[in-house]
Amino acid sequence: MIVVFRKLLTLDEAQQAINKHSTPKPLGVEKIPLLKAHNRVLAEDIIALMDIPPFSRSTVDGYAVKAEDTYGAEENKPIKLTICGSANVGEPPKIVVKRGEAAEIVTGAPMPEGADAVVMIEYTERKDDALYVYRAIAKDGNVMKAGSDIKKGEKILKAGQLLGSSEIGVLAALGLAKAAVYVVPRVAVLSTGAEVTEPGKKLPQGKIYDINAYSLSGAVRESGAEPIYLGVVPDEASELRKTLKHALESADIVITSGGVSVGPKDLLPQTLDALGKPGVIVCGIAIKPGKPTTVAVIDGKMVFSLPGHPTSALLIFHLLVRPILQRMAGLKEKEVFEVKAFAALRMFPAKGRRTFVMVKLKRDKTNRLLAEPVQEGLSGAITTLAKADGFVEIPENQQFIDAGEEVTVHLLKK
Amino acid sequence: MIVVFRKLLTLDEAQQAINKHSTPKPLGVEKIPLLKAHNRVLAEDIIALMDIPPFSRSTVDGYAVKAEDTYGAEENKPIKLTICGSANVGEPPKIVVKRGEAAEIVTGAPMPEGADAVVMIEYTERKDDALYVYRAIAKDGNVMKAGSDIKKGEKILKAGQLLGSSEIGVLAALGLAKAAVYVVPRVAVLSTGAEVTEPGKKLPQGKIYDINAYSLSGAVRESGAEPIYLGVVPDEASELRKTLKHALESADIVITSGGVSVGPKDLLPQTLDALGKPGVIVCGIAIKPGKPTTVAVIDGKMVFSLPGHPTSALLIFHLLVRPILQRMAGLKEKEVFEVKAFAALRMFPAKGRRTFVMVKLKRDKTNRLLAEPVQEGLSGAITTLAKADGFVEIPENQQFIDAGEEVTVHLLKK
Repeated sequence: MIVVFRKLLTLDEAQQAINKHSTPKPLGVEKIPLLKAHNRVLAEDIIALMDIPPFSRSTVDGYAVKAEDTYGAEENKPIKLTICGSANVGEPPKIVVKRGEAAEIVTGAPMPEGADAVVMIEYTERKDDALYVYRAIAKDGNVMKAGSDIKKGEKILKAGQLLGSSEIGVLAALGLAKAAVYVVPRVAVLSTGAEVTEPGKKLPQGKIYDINAYSLSGAVRESGAEPIYLGVVPDEASELRKTLKHALESADIVITSGGVSVGPKDLLPQTLDALGKPGVIVCGIAIKPGKPTTVAVIDGKMVFSLPGHPTSALLIFHLLVRPILQRMAGLKEKEVFEVKAFAALRMFPAKGRRTFVMVKLKRDKTNRLLAEPVQEGLSGAITTLAKADGFVEIPENQQFIDAGEEVTVHLLKK
Repeated sequence: MIVVFRKLLTLDEAQQAINKHSTPKPLGVEKIPLLKAHNRVLAEDIIALMDIPPFSRSTVDGYAVKAEDTYGAEENKPIKLTICGSANVGEPPKIVVKRGEAAEIVTGAPMPEGADAVVMIEYTERKDDALYVYRAIAKDGNVMKAGSDIKKGEKILKAGQLLGSSEIGVLAALGLAKAAVYVVPRVAVLSTGAEVTEPGKKLPQGKIYDINAYSLSGAVRESGAEPIYLGVVPDEASELRKTLKHALESADIVITSGGVSVGPKDLLPQTLDALGKPGVIVCGIAIKPGKPTTVAVIDGKMVFSLPGHPTSALLIFHLLVRPILQRMAGLKEKEVFEVKAFAALRMFPAKGRRTFVMVKLKRDKTNRLLAEPVQEGLSGAITTLAKADGFVEIPENQQFIDAGEEVTVHLLKK
């Protein structure tokens, strides 16, 4: 049994090594129909090429007037104006409102030339062409002015913003039927280990079903990337090499999980080293859980080899892989993936290793948010995954986090 | 101009009318590959048909022993055992560990018969077939017992749960390659109004681009449903009737927005009434914004006609439509769409109408979460959409919400 010993890095050292060897950035830009752009990341700043609204509009049903004509109008002292026409929705107004005149107008219709305010229909009385106005209106009253929402030339959205329903609405308002968005990163996901069987197949004695390729594919989607499922790879050098090569060719980043547990312990690092430069840059991190984490860079593409235990694998994904996927997806804004809470119990770190404790969030009687460690006998427990909302970090040098102490909870989901 | 007056309902009355005429429920169940089930809603309770893990496994590299054989072992008083074989990962163990014996074992391998604990390799020394144990281990030490994560027969997931990465992982652990999920509701989305033009087309004078069909399609997706975009419908009785008929045939629920602003004001309600029974059940609600909201039920399918103003349309969508979509999607758990915050400013309601104020969340110096009204001159402002995180409700009978008062913010996004 050949065992090559490599130095266990601290989490900070591991992150420095990752930063040194890789600069994750967007993979390209594509122009797609706005209706398909939901949940994609905008790839360009949007400068408004027009005023929104493009023209001054009435916000009520009533009569467009010159405001000064209504000054002094009161409930029992109406001012009489003459109807000069009407302004309809969707049409450029053909009339001009002069002193002493009023034009019929409905909500959303463009203001006719000459008018600078709209008297609501409730405060008027009409007799043929005569209009009695019972309440004065100030200049610009009940008018949404051209450009009052978005000014022509204004930078209204920024590259790196996630397009939700509101942002899609802003692009539509500007008449843009397409959006330039960043290409979605493709992530190859595979599991290794002699004991792992794909769900749906018969389970031979001594084997377990693959969890990680499934839960990690979900986590990849939740990070704005697209998983490519490559299934379970036989625990054998040439098969592993072939699959990793295929993964590197078909994806932008590769995630494996599970121990290569039969044969030499460092089959995976050796295979990675042989695939390209610089090869393995992190081989083991002094954290709990997640110690067996391996990171490689092969000709510019990153490979993350996560632990086999499902909870550990998901935790390391959130800690190391998700931030990289988000930068590859082009997301500029840091999304809120953290909440402050109070420790429900005293939590201890593992000796000499930065420790992460899975927690569930709950509220106490006084509505304080508590972080309660998820009961977990062993770090392989699948049910821990389903129960946890996030995790709390305990530094290497800290004795413990006391009950009631404020902690930052890194959320597993938004 | 024919105007049929209908009674303006309070929000509570409107909701009662909706509840009386409709019972939104899931539309059916489909079985899909687990890898495609992410973000879908589980349609059946999952009872574990097997123990997880299916067998007792070692959690460390070391030697499987009878715990009692190690009692009394100390740093300078090791106990000598005899190696009787090894237990490998992925294979049923062929050996039986007897009194005085030990079997080599690696992490994840099944426990051999007779052994009830694993001594870590660090606390042993091996000389050929002799093993010296330097530390005692208790029964079950370093063993993850069969069924310790999930017990056979246990109800592990419930119908109505959203399948995220963790739930997908639990299903994979049980060997399930497919998941029974609820059919995704299809939502027809269309805009009406003579002034509305589709983005991408040339904008005629006096017209504006359609925002609502786009922003509402996004909001539909964010609610777990699938939008069917039907675009802008000409403001004319027979076209409106034809499109609504098509929408009702091709979708499970219909959302229109915008005024039917040329011709008789109640063209839309009249058209809806003519399409089926019971027809219009809500025609105007005493809320601000959102007063012109119309709700119809046509032969069991709901039609929501939202206001034309983008912010108002989105607000009414969140208030009335989203909860119905979620029930049609089969979502059982109430998702957390609310946070508590403190009013940043005094907020006033509109007279006699329940009022909703769009707010942005921010933190003050003491890290308190504040709800700050989004500056909005007019309820049509598109930019309000992009700035707001949620809205605050002010009851009809309340004078105002004071600065510093605790409020519930209904979030627009998760």
